[in-house]
Amino acid sequence: MAYEFKVVRSVEFHETDMAGIVHYSNFFRYMEVAEHGFFRSLGFSVVDHTQPRIGWPRVHAACDYLQPLRFEDQVEIHLLVSEMKSKALSYVFRFRKLNAAPPLEVARGKLTVVCVTHETDGKMKATPIPKVVADKIEVAPADLLK
Amino acid sequence: MAYEFKVVRSVEFHETDMAGIVHYSNFFRYMEVAEHGFFRSLGFSVVDHTQPRIGWPRVHAACDYLQPLRFEDQVEIHLLVSEMKSKALSYVFRFRKLNAAPPLEVARGKLTVVCVTHETDGKMKATPIPKVVADKIEVAPADLLK
Amino acid sequence: MAYEFKVVRSVEFHETDMAGIVHYSNFFRYMEVAEHGFFRSLGFSVVDHTQPRIGWPRVHAACDYLQPLRFEDQVEIHLLVSEMKSKALSYVFRFRKLNAAPPLEVARGKLTVVCVTHETDGKMKATPIPKVVADKIEVAPADLLK
Amino acid sequence: MAYEFKVVRSVEFHETDMAGIVHYSNFFRYMEVAEHGFFRSLGFSVVDHTQPRIGWPRVHAACDYLQPLRFEDQVEIHLLVSEMKSKALSYVFRFRKLNAAPPLEVARGKLTVVCVTHETDGKMKATPIPKVVADKIEVAPADLLK
Repeated sequence: MAYEFKVVRSVEFHETDMAGIVHYSNFFRYMEVAEHGFFRSLGFSVVDHTQPRIGWPRVHAACDYLQPLRFEDQVEIHLLVSEMKSKALSYVFRFRKLNAAPPLEVARGKLTVVCVTHETDGKMKATPIPKVVADKIEVAPADLLK
Repeated sequence: MAYEFKVVRSVEFHETDMAGIVHYSNFFRYMEVAEHGFFRSLGFSVVDHTQPRIGWPRVHAACDYLQPLRFEDQVEIHLLVSEMKSKALSYVFRFRKLNAAPPLEVARGKLTVVCVTHETDGKMKATPIPKVVADKIEVAPADLLK
Repeated sequence: MAYEFKVVRSVEFHETDMAGIVHYSNFFRYMEVAEHGFFRSLGFSVVDHTQPRIGWPRVHAACDYLQPLRFEDQVEIHLLVSEMKSKALSYVFRFRKLNAAPPLEVARGKLTVVCVTHETDGKMKATPIPKVVADKIEVAPADLLK
Repeated sequence: MAYEFKVVRSVEFHETDMAGIVHYSNFFRYMEVAEHGFFRSLGFSVVDHTQPRIGWPRVHAACDYLQPLRFEDQVEIHLLVSEMKSKALSYVFRFRKLNAAPPLEVARGKLTVVCVTHETDGKMKATPIPKVVADKIEVAPADLLK
């Protein structure tokens, strides 16, 4: 059972904006990269090829920005599972700039995703998280989520 | 004095992802486009050329996703000023898909930005919102923010 | 029959990079927005809902950059059909900054797309451009393509 | 002296579009990531902090697309220096999908960048590539560029 995952990225030029810092929308892309890495670490892909196809649309996303990130900064994205319901998962994310001494927390994020099936008419319908997935995931200890 | 702004966009192909819907990070770009349009509607640009340069970094951003948006959907982004402090502004955003009958609320967003000066060492420092700007902005009526 | 299409955009903040100018990759997004507008102007969408589904993957893209574009610049993207084969279309694009006196050419682009069907195994297969589409498109006069 | 650089990326979800493949504009971001990695491999950053600041705006970019890339594909971007002038550098790029047997060439790119100084009025002016940089770069052997 797993409740966390870490990934480190180097900030890329196209992720910056004219203010010289990572555009705030990109933190949500970083969160998703960590989420998908978490799934792969469990032996799954978020893109599932069974029928009916499972998907994980977002229902809530949030981020608190503490410090800017700049080009070539090394940022660690630390995913923690904060809640698990029958059809939904919530994560928190800690962003740390590693090329600072000591490493500096630069942002905190949250994401809630719902497990859905893609119906043949293109609609999405909430569905219980498959047991094979749910059995591998647990909520992180409370003190890590503070 | 103004407390709201609306902009309509047509969803572009590159804004979608392999799930066939607008990538969730792009809602934050839509919010910012509305914010910048709001500033222009007041006669300002968020990119200021006075010295020292003023900037508006984000300290908090959030979005609740109710329905997906797809390619060529017409989406109205409705910005409302929800709070004004001496150095910070908060907005809420209502996303409505106009090519639905009746128009369909698809998402709600929030953004808090802080007014800063860019110091010569590259650092940002919180500063009171210039009076010329603050004088043109007011908080939206409470019933619109519900 | 049509051989051209024009669209005007206002440069958005998230399209800039830390050099203070529109990131060069975004010119390719602008080209595609003009291409899709061209299709809509003919009464079609590039996203087709017939069976088997038609698609238009790119096989070649190029851009020459003459001048930078900055936040809030007004840029006109002028699409011209430069070649039409049974299964492929080529376009050239002229980018002009309208908030300059006189308007300033800032870039020139090229795009070649192929008409394909999406097979049930996910593969794409080149196919003749549907007659209903081809009948509405012609190559631009040579002097416009110089 | 160096004439090449390789980097491997895993395709991220947000890089795909509703056609289920990497959006064609993102190949240009991949090229730039390889270019910046090449610079770091030489001991430099493309973002220079000397005065006047040096920059490397693009004057030409092109890509030929042979095969699509999909989510979680492993793509190697192989940069080769194809030409060096006093004020300009040209690169070619080979994109290979590594999770294919044998690895599959999926695209070829080209990029020409010019060395500039950023003047105090915001304008950019072409300038000779600094000797300390030029001394570390050479053109790749002709047979590698075929």
